[in-house]
Amino acid sequence: MSESASELQHLRALLRQFAAERDWEQFHTPKNLASALSVEAAELLEPFQWLVAGEKEELGADKLKDVRFEMADVLAYLIQMADRLDVDLYQALLEKIELNRIKYPAKPV
Amino acid sequence: MSESASELQHLRALLRQFAAERDWEQFHTPKNLASALSVEAAELLEPFQWLVAGEKEELGADKLKDVRFEMADVLAYLIQMADRLDVDLYQALLEKIELNRIKYPAKPV
Amino acid sequence: MSESASELQHLRALLRQFAAERDWEQFHTPKNLASALSVEAAELLEPFQWLVAGEKEELGADKLKDVRFEMADVLAYLIQMADRLDVDLYQALLEKIELNRIKYPAKPV
Amino acid sequence: MSESASELQHLRALLRQFAAERDWEQFHTPKNLASALSVEAAELLEPFQWLVAGEKEELGADKLKDVRFEMADVLAYLIQMADRLDVDLYQALLEKIELNRIKYPAKPV
Repeated sequence: MSESASELQHLRALLRQFAAERDWEQFHTPKNLASALSVEAAELLEPFQWLVAGEKEELGADKLKDVRFEMADVLAYLIQMADRLDVDLYQALLEKIELNRIKYPAKPV
Repeated sequence: MSESASELQHLRALLRQFAAERDWEQFHTPKNLASALSVEAAELLEPFQWLVAGEKEELGADKLKDVRFEMADVLAYLIQMADRLDVDLYQALLEKIELNRIKYPAKPV
Repeated sequence: MSESASELQHLRALLRQFAAERDWEQFHTPKNLASALSVEAAELLEPFQWLVAGEKEELGADKLKDVRFEMADVLAYLIQMADRLDVDLYQALLEKIELNRIKYPAKPV
Repeated sequence: MSESASELQHLRALLRQFAAERDWEQFHTPKNLASALSVEAAELLEPFQWLVAGEKEELGADKLKDVRFEMADVLAYLIQMADRLDVDLYQALLEKIELNRIKYPAKPV
């Protein structure tokens, strides 16, 4: 991948290579990736589910380490799903933010 | 934000501004963001749940448009959660891929 | 179904008939039912995600009506999945409660 | 609980007692229970996510044992949530099936 590849493009390239080396592309249908993403998102929710305030301090340092890698898993499946569906995640979110600006106008000062 | 901000940093800045303009930071505890992420991940799974092969063509163009924005929502909550937890998503996924290289060795050719 | 069928057996019989009348059994693989269950569980979480205390009163009467039917959907998919996997939900939960009594001993008075 | 209590009422009584003995009612807000239910639903999906056909035989006997208890967990949180929200799950599903009969008419023979 080139020097100028963006972060998301670089991660996509690494994930493509990782799957190819293991012959895992056959399992990576968009449906299966959406399931895997949903499972990882729930694993990310799990350490927070009984917290009272739900803040970082309440979680503790050890669990934060796990949470960090769960977040990485969510991103990995999201990038792989986007790859299979030819979705540009960066552009999609830029557009979605613009749509949300119209849907939820900021209160006037 | 500067010219040289990365994609993920740029999106984070936009999302910070969006939440601040609406006074929504108070709701954005890591716990609530993890819930919202899990809900969006399930919405992303929903159009795939009864598909047989689960491929892009089976989904159809109209649903793909929705799916694209659901993916954007997942990314938005993931970036906001990472922001609250001081997690660098890019670094976390680079590290996770390295750990997975050890955990799941590629088959020798 | 007989007079003496239990609640869960009666619901299972109704759900079997409902699927058969629509020729939907073909879609009801355990995998697809597990996806659908996960999607419904997230829809059940959705109205609670930004609540502060997360109590019934905060939800409001209108949303409670929706939540009631989302809970019914979760139960429906759970019963159908159990049917496909030959799981007796009632027995499984009785056993699980006993296992949890050992795993999480009650504090002595 | 009386001889004539239904399955769901009996399970609810056992779960109430279990939580009370451990002083866990304080954590069991409807919001937290909805999160826990969503997490368990995803754990139930996890062993199916990469299966091709998604049928029982493909899962295998060992994983089926785990799945059986994950299903019990889903039911436990659903019953506890219904208890907190004063929802009669049996009645709710009977009504939902009737609504679905209207929404999705069976094809004429």
